[in-house]
Amino acid sequence: MSKTVVVFHSGYGHTERVAEFVAKGAQAALIAIDPDGNLSNEQWLQLDEADAIVMGSPTYMGMVSWQFKKFADTSSSRWYSGAWQGKVAGGFTISGSLSGDKLSTLQYLMTLAMQHGMVWVGQPGLGDGTINRLGSNSGVMAQVGAASPASAIPQGDLDTAHALGQRIAELAAKLKA
Amino acid sequence: MSKTVVVFHSGYGHTERVAEFVAKGAQAALIAIDPDGNLSNEQWLQLDEADAIVMGSPTYMGMVSWQFKKFADTSSSRWYSGAWQGKVAGGFTISGSLSGDKLSTLQYLMTLAMQHGMVWVGQPGLGDGTINRLGSNSGVMAQVGAASPASAIPQGDLDTAHALGQRIAELAAKLKA
Amino acid sequence: MSKTVVVFHSGYGHTERVAEFVAKGAQAALIAIDPDGNLSNEQWLQLDEADAIVMGSPTYMGMVSWQFKKFADTSSSRWYSGAWQGKVAGGFTISGSLSGDKLSTLQYLMTLAMQHGMVWVGQPGLGDGTINRLGSNSGVMAQVGAASPASAIPQGDLDTAHALGQRIAELAAKLKA
Amino acid sequence: MSKTVVVFHSGYGHTERVAEFVAKGAQAALIAIDPDGNLSNEQWLQLDEADAIVMGSPTYMGMVSWQFKKFADTSSSRWYSGAWQGKVAGGFTISGSLSGDKLSTLQYLMTLAMQHGMVWVGQPGLGDGTINRLGSNSGVMAQVGAASPASAIPQGDLDTAHALGQRIAELAAKLKA
Repeated sequence: MSKTVVVFHSGYGHTERVAEFVAKGAQAALIAIDPDGNLSNEQWLQLDEADAIVMGSPTYMGMVSWQFKKFADTSSSRWYSGAWQGKVAGGFTISGSLSGDKLSTLQYLMTLAMQHGMVWVGQPGLGDGTINRLGSNSGVMAQVGAASPASAIPQGDLDTAHALGQRIAELAAKLKA
Repeated sequence: MSKTVVVFHSGYGHTERVAEFVAKGAQAALIAIDPDGNLSNEQWLQLDEADAIVMGSPTYMGMVSWQFKKFADTSSSRWYSGAWQGKVAGGFTISGSLSGDKLSTLQYLMTLAMQHGMVWVGQPGLGDGTINRLGSNSGVMAQVGAASPASAIPQGDLDTAHALGQRIAELAAKLKA
Repeated sequence: MSKTVVVFHSGYGHTERVAEFVAKGAQAALIAIDPDGNLSNEQWLQLDEADAIVMGSPTYMGMVSWQFKKFADTSSSRWYSGAWQGKVAGGFTISGSLSGDKLSTLQYLMTLAMQHGMVWVGQPGLGDGTINRLGSNSGVMAQVGAASPASAIPQGDLDTAHALGQRIAELAAKLKA
Repeated sequence: MSKTVVVFHSGYGHTERVAEFVAKGAQAALIAIDPDGNLSNEQWLQLDEADAIVMGSPTYMGMVSWQFKKFADTSSSRWYSGAWQGKVAGGFTISGSLSGDKLSTLQYLMTLAMQHGMVWVGQPGLGDGTINRLGSNSGVMAQVGAASPASAIPQGDLDTAHALGQRIAELAAKLKA
């Protein structure tokens, strides 16, 4: 059995809701980066032991939040030792506009995964208006108006997140076998 | 009076329609890259004499079309001589999905402009559901379903293109003064 | 036994030389995109049957060459049918400057692979002055002065290409098992 | 007379040294983001009053440092009000490898500037081995081995930074006239 972990930062609960669906799809543990951009030692160990790590952040000012970036900077000790090489990786983001710069966030998550020597898995397939509504392939993009609560995120976006989780867990299981 | 030129490739008429609105906003000449990715010598001279160049391409397979890229590759003679340094630049793209990889196309247009030493002007402001409907700032993103004709492009997207043209022409005029 | 194919465009032989070392590392077949950006039907079938596809292009004007882009645009039939989903992918590029915009090319190769639903494998590890001399992780970056022949590409860059080929073939074999 | 400000985060003094040369070229004030990612109110006002803002950060884990990103996130109040629209912008970064992911950092600085509606100015011209040694056009890339002090940064890289500062200040003066 492979272990998948979903590590994310959520400012107002929207990214957390998407993370929950990724985690359901992957039967994964959830690790929330705290408002100061920190994880506990125990949480770092959970990441070290995972076969797959799915990373999520809101898109703020065209990029992952600073709290997520602090997590990425702190992961440099793992980069230096090569501790995460070969793990499976994937990512997701959410913002208030239909496109905006969400791709910029996913590109960075890919860049970070590549620095760690991980294997990146995206979201295949064309959008159909419900699943992959926004037409993203590098990872999952979700969207809801800036003034809307997390409960207003379209179900199709959450189902897309669930599908990504499933795909990542399956690949991690295959690679572990 | 400053001169602005809109150079674009359009596969099925959608990018052309957006280009027309940029050109109206900028009171610019339109230059269409042909289906083989070529321009006439006269069109290259028009570009050389312009104070501002706005570049447009559909997003195909996550990037500008190969015809647009052939134009970019052919512009390497101007890159080598620095002929376009200091010109004002901007860009636009259209595709069938709400987000997709349109940002990847705009990022490339910026990269190309930077290689030429141009000054990049984007699309300021938050989306309001009509103007800048998709929430793009690096340039204009327009969208219409893959099976829809160019006439179905939302008017707000075209008005956004018009506003970008206007902004670029104004900046070019200021820099020329 | 898994099958890896290296598909590349080379303008002046530099990318071809890097491709040869990737192919050696992966025990892969080489497919050269022709000067008009075309492949034969037989070559398309080779790609369809591959377990892993490594993609290579020079960086021209900040991006893959137009010939490579034409290959990418033509691959849209496989994108539409999902024919390449789950294949392993990786990439490499070369240009005349130490950094330049080579990352832009690798980012695009990743974007293209994601559109096809492929699994992306990069180049792990820090540079040591020889292997991974330029410090790239998203794929292999090679470099040689613009006026230099392909034979002048540093051996370390070629060894890096070899290592990427090996890594990709190993992962493809694991996933096939 | 136009006012240029250089805002930067420096972890170990390398980015600060590059920032000093940009500032000399632009006759600009220097604003250092503190180790917690904060600026004083007075420093925010300096930015608000500037005609041009040059932004600098080390490339850590493939992107601006978290402290720089915290500055970017905090600037969202200016984004919301459009307070920085029309200002001139440019950027620079430094890291330990020749290429690495420095372009990823410059791409983000451009994305951030575009969100603010600023006008982006890069670094024109081919590298000559000294000026623009690494061949970057989107902004300035500097490099020195990870174990080397800031004093070891090649003079050509610093001269390149100086030239960018000059170019940005000239454009800001033209636009203000």
